[in-house]
Amino acid sequence: MPPTAPERITSLQNPRVKQLVKLRDRRPRDEAGVFLVEGYRQIRRALEKRIALRELYFCRECFLGANEDALLAEARAAGTELVELSRHAFEKVAYRERPDGLLAVAPQWRRELADLQLGTAPFLLVVEGIEKPGNLGTILRSADAAGCDAVIVCDPVTDIFNPNVVRASTGVLFSVPLVVAESRTVAAWLRERGIRSAATTPHSEQLYTAADLRGPLALIMGSEQYGLSEFWMSRSDLKLRIPMAGQADSLNVAMATIITLFEAVRQRGGGSAR
Amino acid sequence: MPPTAPERITSLQNPRVKQLVKLRDRRPRDEAGVFLVEGYRQIRRALEKRIALRELYFCRECFLGANEDALLAEARAAGTELVELSRHAFEKVAYRERPDGLLAVAPQWRRELADLQLGTAPFLLVVEGIEKPGNLGTILRSADAAGCDAVIVCDPVTDIFNPNVVRASTGVLFSVPLVVAESRTVAAWLRERGIRSAATTPHSEQLYTAADLRGPLALIMGSEQYGLSEFWMSRSDLKLRIPMAGQADSLNVAMATIITLFEAVRQRGGGSAR
Repeated sequence: MPPTAPERITSLQNPRVKQLVKLRDRRPRDEAGVFLVEGYRQIRRALEKRIALRELYFCRECFLGANEDALLAEARAAGTELVELSRHAFEKVAYRERPDGLLAVAPQWRRELADLQLGTAPFLLVVEGIEKPGNLGTILRSADAAGCDAVIVCDPVTDIFNPNVVRASTGVLFSVPLVVAESRTVAAWLRERGIRSAATTPHSEQLYTAADLRGPLALIMGSEQYGLSEFWMSRSDLKLRIPMAGQADSLNVAMATIITLFEAVRQRGGGSAR
Repeated sequence: MPPTAPERITSLQNPRVKQLVKLRDRRPRDEAGVFLVEGYRQIRRALEKRIALRELYFCRECFLGANEDALLAEARAAGTELVELSRHAFEKVAYRERPDGLLAVAPQWRRELADLQLGTAPFLLVVEGIEKPGNLGTILRSADAAGCDAVIVCDPVTDIFNPNVVRASTGVLFSVPLVVAESRTVAAWLRERGIRSAATTPHSEQLYTAADLRGPLALIMGSEQYGLSEFWMSRSDLKLRIPMAGQADSLNVAMATIITLFEAVRQRGGGSAR
């Protein structure tokens, strides 16, 4: 329980409530330089990664677990402002169907390619034009699980700070190094560093399991609707095909990504050192 | 364009409209022995697999593409009753956020273990207690892409005819042989047929890539929240661990399933014959 009673908001006309609703859209997010983080698990991750949450809105009546008060205390100790909302007000600002009574405002950040600290054999994931926030979030989870050094989002259609990216990433957004950049810049940067690019596409004879995915590697994945652009297709050192037994469109981009990432992990000897 | 003008419904009080809304729930579905199939892609799959759709509700104003009339004609030729709805009525019966003006009623079916036609080296996926319809649908897609001979759903928490399973499966529900059965029955059946069971669990030292996944194999996956039950843990011939570099919970059950399925495909030489 926080030591002093925080502010409590009940009115849907409250300017803070209105601002929280606005932050679902990209322009107000970018103007304010912040984004929304909803839910215990995501906020827990943010605190673990020492993200300086600006505000944490909570609604006791919506709490689902027993550890929320500890989370509030931890956020307050880290300098986050706590604001209590009535159930009515919280349901207005929550974007989840079943809100768990926790919604934070976090500062946006921007990482450049030059900020990435890479070893001798970098393992990168490059995604191009992903449209669905849920897919981008799932892809971030996959990259985290596979131990990618970074995810590079080219020519984004989806804002990486979209609430549904944050949600689908289950907080991995806070831990995987993430860079947004133009395809041309990224392609030049990979070439300079001698990092091989491997594109996954149905238009290849080479099975992804038969290609050598060791050493410096960037896996390149295209968009849901259009696949990989001609730009990346013509610049990729390897073109990989995932065999498909069933319907041609059984695998979506998130599924193709995780399959290829974990084949690379296997070849690179991942997990064997545990 | 269908040759004769079909019935057109505009009232939300129409008994058919009310019945369609009811079919979102399991009990009315089971009582009527039918389920809902919404959307062009899913209905297309159903027709391709010669599912005898009973009714096809459509709303021209909601159509998104150019092939809907051909689909209607095909359904009518296959004996499906066509019913036109006003936009208002269609939006009432649609369960998608952005309905595309097509909603069919299909007959439920029931396949038993004894109905499965298996070769000398069956490749099966067994899932236990999956809770989220979206995960079950994604898992069906993965099994289809991996060329599983069948998916066996043990002790289901989620009805396989839930609209969100149908949606997330993108129609694969109609093509992958699917059996619902009790775990005890399934375990005995696998043993009788000499099919090895391989459970994926974090509580194992054996890497999934180091185990032999060739020959008759059933991959066993547990539920989102509880993982694999003690029943299956104690009965599985192999226990496989997927290495995880990032957060302990980065991989959900659908992701773990596709990773393991495609490692089995690799070992079994899948795709090389194309």
